Amino acid sequence: MLARMGLFAAAELGHELSKRDWEEAQPELRVDLVNAQYDLRSAPFEVLVLVEGDHRIGCQRLVHDMFEWMDGRYLRAAAFDVGGARASGRPPFARYWDAMPGRGITGLFLDGWTSEAIAERMLGALDAAAFERRIGAIQRFERLLVEDGTLLLKFWLHLPAAAREKELARAAKYREQMTWLTAGDWELAKQVDAALPIAEHAIEHTGRAAPWHVVESTDTSYRNRTVAESLRSALRARLALPATAAEPATSDAAAVIAVPDASRRSVLDSVDGSQALEKKDYQQKLARWQGELGRLSLEARTRQVPTLLVFEGWDAAGKGGVIRRVTSALNVRHYVVHAIAAPTPEERNHHYLWRFWRRIPEAGCIGIFDRSWYGRVLVERVEGFASPAEWSRAYTEIRDFEEQLTDAGCLVLKFWLHIDPEEQLARFQAREQTAYKKHKITDEDYRNREQWGAYTAAVDDMVARTSTDAAPWHLIAANQKRFARVEVLKTLCKALKRRL
Amino acid sequence: MLARMGLFAAAELGHELSKRDWEEAQPELRVDLVNAQYDLRSAPFEVLVLVEGDHRIGCQRLVHDMFEWMDGRYLRAAAFDVGGARASGRPPFARYWDAMPGRGITGLFLDGWTSEAIAERMLGALDAAAFERRIGAIQRFERLLVEDGTLLLKFWLHLPAAAREKELARAAKYREQMTWLTAGDWELAKQVDAALPIAEHAIEHTGRAAPWHVVESTDTSYRNRTVAESLRSALRARLALPATAAEPATSDAAAVIAVPDASRRSVLDSVDGSQALEKKDYQQKLARWQGELGRLSLEARTRQVPTLLVFEGWDAAGKGGVIRRVTSALNVRHYVVHAIAAPTPEERNHHYLWRFWRRIPEAGCIGIFDRSWYGRVLVERVEGFASPAEWSRAYTEIRDFEEQLTDAGCLVLKFWLHIDPEEQLARFQAREQTAYKKHKITDEDYRNREQWGAYTAAVDDMVARTSTDAAPWHLIAANQKRFARVEVLKTLCKALKRRL
Repeated sequence: MLARMGLFAAAELGHELSKRDWEEAQPELRVDLVNAQYDLRSAPFEVLVLVEGDHRIGCQRLVHDMFEWMDGRYLRAAAFDVGGARASGRPPFARYWDAMPGRGITGLFLDGWTSEAIAERMLGALDAAAFERRIGAIQRFERLLVEDGTLLLKFWLHLPAAAREKELARAAKYREQMTWLTAGDWELAKQVDAALPIAEHAIEHTGRAAPWHVVESTDTSYRNRTVAESLRSALRARLALPATAAEPATSDAAAVIAVPDASRRSVLDSVDGSQALEKKDYQQKLARWQGELGRLSLEARTRQVPTLLVFEGWDAAGKGGVIRRVTSALNVRHYVVHAIAAPTPEERNHHYLWRFWRRIPEAGCIGIFDRSWYGRVLVERVEGFASPAEWSRAYTEIRDFEEQLTDAGCLVLKFWLHIDPEEQLARFQAREQTAYKKHKITDEDYRNREQWGAYTAAVDDMVARTSTDAAPWHLIAANQKRFARVEVLKTLCKALKRRL
Repeated sequence: MLARMGLFAAAELGHELSKRDWEEAQPELRVDLVNAQYDLRSAPFEVLVLVEGDHRIGCQRLVHDMFEWMDGRYLRAAAFDVGGARASGRPPFARYWDAMPGRGITGLFLDGWTSEAIAERMLGALDAAAFERRIGAIQRFERLLVEDGTLLLKFWLHLPAAAREKELARAAKYREQMTWLTAGDWELAKQVDAALPIAEHAIEHTGRAAPWHVVESTDTSYRNRTVAESLRSALRARLALPATAAEPATSDAAAVIAVPDASRRSVLDSVDGSQALEKKDYQQKLARWQGELGRLSLEARTRQVPTLLVFEGWDAAGKGGVIRRVTSALNVRHYVVHAIAAPTPEERNHHYLWRFWRRIPEAGCIGIFDRSWYGRVLVERVEGFASPAEWSRAYTEIRDFEEQLTDAGCLVLKFWLHIDPEEQLARFQAREQTAYKKHKITDEDYRNREQWGAYTAAVDDMVARTSTDAAPWHLIAANQKRFARVEVLKTLCKALKRRL
């Protein structure tokens, strides 16, 4: 007779440890873990520990016990409701981004994205194909974290069938002792048999970026010691790496900065910079499209559709003026403008996308980004603030980010305002003549002009690699401000109309 | 015939300014405002501009126009729904705390706490007495901001009756132009007559800490110029003050640090430190009260009651151990432990209570604070990190904070764990012998012992000035850990039972 050697087989061997053994091992483990936590306070990477499993009670106890061995000041737990309905319009990973503790604090997640996917499959909220797509999204999300340097430790607590039977048989006793267990906890405990094959499939396919540690959870001392030791060795190994090695090699071929080449054609060459509007024509069209936008925005509000607008472009291309023509047409309560400057110290302690995830528009709201996450593949690439590995993988990360938004029902539009170098120079000089615009022009702006070719190559790559059906780039001819303003309003109205 | 000279009389004189005058004044005003914004980036105080008024359309336009004159990178707008229902269990001021931009960014609030109070009175959500209490709360909140150094600028846009009639008569035209106006905006515009006496009363009684600028809103150019000039002169005047003068005199008599006096009786003397439990008795009681707490916590969850627990006490008094005995009895999903350390740079850019407002427990959740806002009147007072004016006014600020929580239905319990100096010394020495506790003991801990008298005086003042019926202090005898743990569990269970 062939025993089925599933993923959980190694966690069904009846591992046990006497309580005394665990108590004897504890002092040294605690010293090591607390010392590691101290070192982590200034380490250049994040640490995230996931506690998930088919042993629901065991997961709860483990999270609690970890606060016993570790220093609570540098440990932050977050528990996620696996079966809970998500707020409409929020992508599945939004709440995990919200809960990221950043460098210096170890995050402890009870039931993360994998448990959520399993529960949604169980409840029928995901069909077989959607479940596979979610697994793909999980793989990409974990890869994003790991490539950013995050130490991602995943524990799956498994209770073998016999032990589970025993636990359910003793439910009355547990109910008496663990009065905090909810009806939902007991309901889930009974459904484990049905969930196990789904869990096994999910675990098998989500171990690439960060492997699962499947831990037998029958015996508390064994469970605690196994987890504590795995944690210690992972933290130690990682802390021992030199800081420069912290960045794992990306499997994307690192792109090479395209050499600006006079004969090379750019997507920007396709923009007809001579397009213009007469003043009277402009005023009529502006009024028409602003009126249309106001009406559509109320409709989007009623239907609770979120909208996200990205504005990028050359310095002095007129982003601010365009944005104000958009916001004039909107109710002040229905939009938020995010002027993106250098990240704060807190934001620097996180993945570069974190600060944008925190600003994704709520249902019925329009989020307007005056510069955005595309800084990663524009200024950070050209100026060398991001390494080639970092900005190369950013295209995929950004596509995933925007795909999650559009999948969740968000309308995403991206505008590149294009002007010629000659027009830019004229505007710089005009700014220097206008008292209240002088502060907008510095020597750096002039220096940036020398990089026109490198920026053009970066824009070409950006458009080629992040323009998708669901979240397309719109290249706007902006040599004449009037034309650009009407063009953006018109594009926005048409996209809103199609969406509603 | 006697004309009624109300609060709005001066804003009903038919102020007008030609569009050309405004356009001529703009360049200089813009330079000055933008320069002021630059200086504010490193100024040691917050700036908050409130735009409210009976002229709803005018308020919307003003907020929009301000982004035209000022630098959007250092300006953050937040619009509040005045008639919107508040999330249950959230105190009225919570959302304003959430939206505070912190130093360096000017906050622009459309419809703040005063408009909210007026709207709630209109809708009958506040009766006459509750409205007066709310006005009192507004006065104290504004005073708290101003005493912290915040520059609070409040504009009330008033539309005289005749202009209002005209605006409503032209509603069809506005509807055509301002397509973003919602049905609710028009509804409110029609109710202005009924709202005006309430607004007048509110404005009259909320001008002490920061005066209202009542601006006639009939003419856009006049409105814009008046606001822009008021803003400029307020910013200039404030920036011209030396940093040391930024802290306004508090009207509280600054308390004096009580001289430790051997003959002086302290509230802590009333704690009987000899109380103890036998091991077996302890185990029985611990199980009993933990079981009870688990059951009660589920009931509180079902009834959506938030609970907030504060733990303060001498170093080594056993806060961590007590907290873990509480959390063992709870579902990991139903509580959050906040270990309070030094504030982050972002938190330092705000009022000291800001970081705690962000952590108030949600409905059905238990927020556990391992140290808290009481640091202001304990360590910050004794070590001189807060000035006497700062910590003296903190008692009132804290009482107001907790009163808002309890008024909103939150159960608030505060525990001081008391041990003798001798017991503390013994525990310090024991910690030095325990490998994994060594990091918990430093020279500073020994130095703090020399301040025992000053801390005792601070505890006395704290208990005397912040123990209220709704949020009492519980002094817990903690010389024996077992006794303290059971005592806290029992006190918590009894309070929960009374509340549910």
